[in-house]
Amino acid sequence: MTAEIISVGTELLLGNILNTNAQFLSQELAALGITVQRQSTIGDNHDRLAEWVEAAKARADLLVFTGGLGPTADDLTKETVAACYGDSLTFDPEEWEKITSFFARMGRQTTPNNRKQAMVPVHGQKIPNAHGTAPGAWFEQEGRCAVLMPGVPAEMKAMWAEQVRPRLLARQNCTLHSLTLRVLGGESDIEYRVRGLLKNENPTAAIYCKTGESEIRITARAASDQDGAQMCRAYAKKFYDLLGDAVYDEDVPGLAHTVVHTLAARGLTLSTAESCTGGMIAQQLTGVPGASDVFGYGFVTYWEQAKARLLGVNPAVIERYNVVSGPVAAQMARGARAASGSDLAVAVTGLAGPGGGDAVRPVGTVYIAGAAGTSVFVEKFHYVRPDRENTRARAAHAALELALRLAQGKAPAGCYRIDAAACSDPAALAALDGALIL
Amino acid sequence: MTAEIISVGTELLLGNILNTNAQFLSQELAALGITVQRQSTIGDNHDRLAEWVEAAKARADLLVFTGGLGPTADDLTKETVAACYGDSLTFDPEEWEKITSFFARMGRQTTPNNRKQAMVPVHGQKIPNAHGTAPGAWFEQEGRCAVLMPGVPAEMKAMWAEQVRPRLLARQNCTLHSLTLRVLGGESDIEYRVRGLLKNENPTAAIYCKTGESEIRITARAASDQDGAQMCRAYAKKFYDLLGDAVYDEDVPGLAHTVVHTLAARGLTLSTAESCTGGMIAQQLTGVPGASDVFGYGFVTYWEQAKARLLGVNPAVIERYNVVSGPVAAQMARGARAASGSDLAVAVTGLAGPGGGDAVRPVGTVYIAGAAGTSVFVEKFHYVRPDRENTRARAAHAALELALRLAQGKAPAGCYRIDAAACSDPAALAALDGALIL
Repeated sequence: MTAEIISVGTELLLGNILNTNAQFLSQELAALGITVQRQSTIGDNHDRLAEWVEAAKARADLLVFTGGLGPTADDLTKETVAACYGDSLTFDPEEWEKITSFFARMGRQTTPNNRKQAMVPVHGQKIPNAHGTAPGAWFEQEGRCAVLMPGVPAEMKAMWAEQVRPRLLARQNCTLHSLTLRVLGGESDIEYRVRGLLKNENPTAAIYCKTGESEIRITARAASDQDGAQMCRAYAKKFYDLLGDAVYDEDVPGLAHTVVHTLAARGLTLSTAESCTGGMIAQQLTGVPGASDVFGYGFVTYWEQAKARLLGVNPAVIERYNVVSGPVAAQMARGARAASGSDLAVAVTGLAGPGGGDAVRPVGTVYIAGAAGTSVFVEKFHYVRPDRENTRARAAHAALELALRLAQGKAPAGCYRIDAAACSDPAALAALDGALIL
Repeated sequence: MTAEIISVGTELLLGNILNTNAQFLSQELAALGITVQRQSTIGDNHDRLAEWVEAAKARADLLVFTGGLGPTADDLTKETVAACYGDSLTFDPEEWEKITSFFARMGRQTTPNNRKQAMVPVHGQKIPNAHGTAPGAWFEQEGRCAVLMPGVPAEMKAMWAEQVRPRLLARQNCTLHSLTLRVLGGESDIEYRVRGLLKNENPTAAIYCKTGESEIRITARAASDQDGAQMCRAYAKKFYDLLGDAVYDEDVPGLAHTVVHTLAARGLTLSTAESCTGGMIAQQLTGVPGASDVFGYGFVTYWEQAKARLLGVNPAVIERYNVVSGPVAAQMARGARAASGSDLAVAVTGLAGPGGGDAVRPVGTVYIAGAAGTSVFVEKFHYVRPDRENTRARAAHAALELALRLAQGKAPAGCYRIDAAACSDPAALAALDGALIL
């Protein structure tokens, strides 16, 4: 089965909004085993739209439209597509009742234009919209179909999930099951290692690159959800075999979620001490519902005096080793744990730029420390892309990665270990600094 | 002049990447006075591509391509478009030299495929790529043009700004000047108020909605930059006349920048105390280069005991009024100022959900406080869309808005004022709570 995605709206052609609908629908159609051959965006112009739809209808089994279902004179999609599929529209009192009562609840009056939204296919079907006023529409002629959905992403996605995808699955007499692996590590490296698994017919597998990690989505089409789940699990094993414990979780939105869930499962608490990341780690942790079970204290210590006053970092250590150094990161982590009483703490100090930096500590240098039990682990990073936000985001991700290893009770790889009690000892700090400066 | 944007790449049709290039180019072409009539995305398939280009060439004066310039057999755009414009390709030793030396610097070997990237138009022009290995191309036939750029957004944007836009400006014998206004307030409300100014030929004006604010971009085409600047300024005045001081700044990336710049200009410092926003305000402030001049301390006090220990919030006040309340917000702001010694402080406590909430404090209830001089200002918000991230983002934005008013030395509108010294006084706290609970 082949499809084309057609987005309708002059605001897209002007670049006023980003077309995220086309990506979403492409992913969903690919998962259904439907080949998307073209995406296109056209304006609200009757003649151009009609010509376009005729040509697309001749090429593809299914046309998926978003946008152009509003009440204004500009909104022409429904009547234009109806005509192309040999259908027409009729007024639907039930839809009109929904629209008028929605307006009444909002304390607003309907205008004659709103009646357009209550027009539904005569031969095709209307598609109920549980999240807005405009119903969608389904047209069909000689086995060729067109589906029309609203342009507002939230409404479109809901209509897709509740109404359109089930119809397509029923047509194909199958069900879909998905499994998402989240993988730590350099993106192009991960993609290279698993490239042989990314061109499969069923299950399909796709990789999406994120900061410091990748997402691998496996989707199986099967007669039952149970069969689909088994197929996904078997295919996931191939990824695990290649990637080992770089796969850190399944079916979560991101690393902060896994950190919070792991801490909760083990009854542990975490605190944060941030300099260059400036609150980014705390913000990601508190973005997870239920974070308050495991996270209570975050210190954003941007100034040296704040590091001293809130975290007990020794000003002489800053003076001696620089504020961007292993010894300072270690004292920050130790201090956050002490000030908050948490089981674990992570700390970040670094140089995000654009200014500052020298030969020893160029922009992009970041030290990350984690305190757990009697240990403090310290790690040095140097991010080469000289971009403030990118450096901060990667540093925050690395700190969460360290937090995860500590929460799992694993000794983090690639870190220098110093005894928590030795974090004030000049010789131990000198050794730490020497080990990480090289 | 009319144009179509054609993105080439199977990875776009699979939804593996989001097409941000089309939006960027649509904005840029609109600013140049070029009407984009269609955007389309097609795969790396020779026959489909050729057919598509022939049809598009018949419709539009200019075709703008991104993607398909890589070294693999899949990358067909250049030869296909060349043929459609009656041109062909020839090997360019200078480009080949660039490619081989780039590979040598990376410690890698070129493959025979890489020679494809050194092929350039015979009659048209190559477009130098200062940020990657693949040169772009310009084809022309009977006044109809095609320009080919790489698909990687950073390379494409650089080639556009350095090479393609200047060519188009020279053709149109003009220059471009832009001015961006940043406007506080409800997005649809702002758009409604300025709608009469958004359909202008020159300067053009477009509105982009963001969390808690809008961006209005004014772009003038003129013979000189000076003329363009004057045209933009005159048109901006129309927006100022409609919007007044809702326009908070010009040509900055966002509110945090204006807050940092305003604080710096006035020699003031700010600290933050965050509960439900969990570090988001601090993270936005520290995202601004130079933030360390004005921001040193951020407290993420997610637990009640953290509010008490770090900010001196009275547990009895939490007990009496609830942790999500005006009295607690006021004590948090006062405490952050005291603990950090900053001139100003802002604090947020709220219920981002998804759980919790009752009739008095439903999910989405947020209290924001700002401390300055002898005053603490407190404001209550209720965000109706029940989405954790959206509630947090809007609360952080509202706190920055309050910080801006305090930094400007303005009494913030819509706030309840309490004397800083009265923040421990039971009667004053009761009055504050009563005023904001209603």
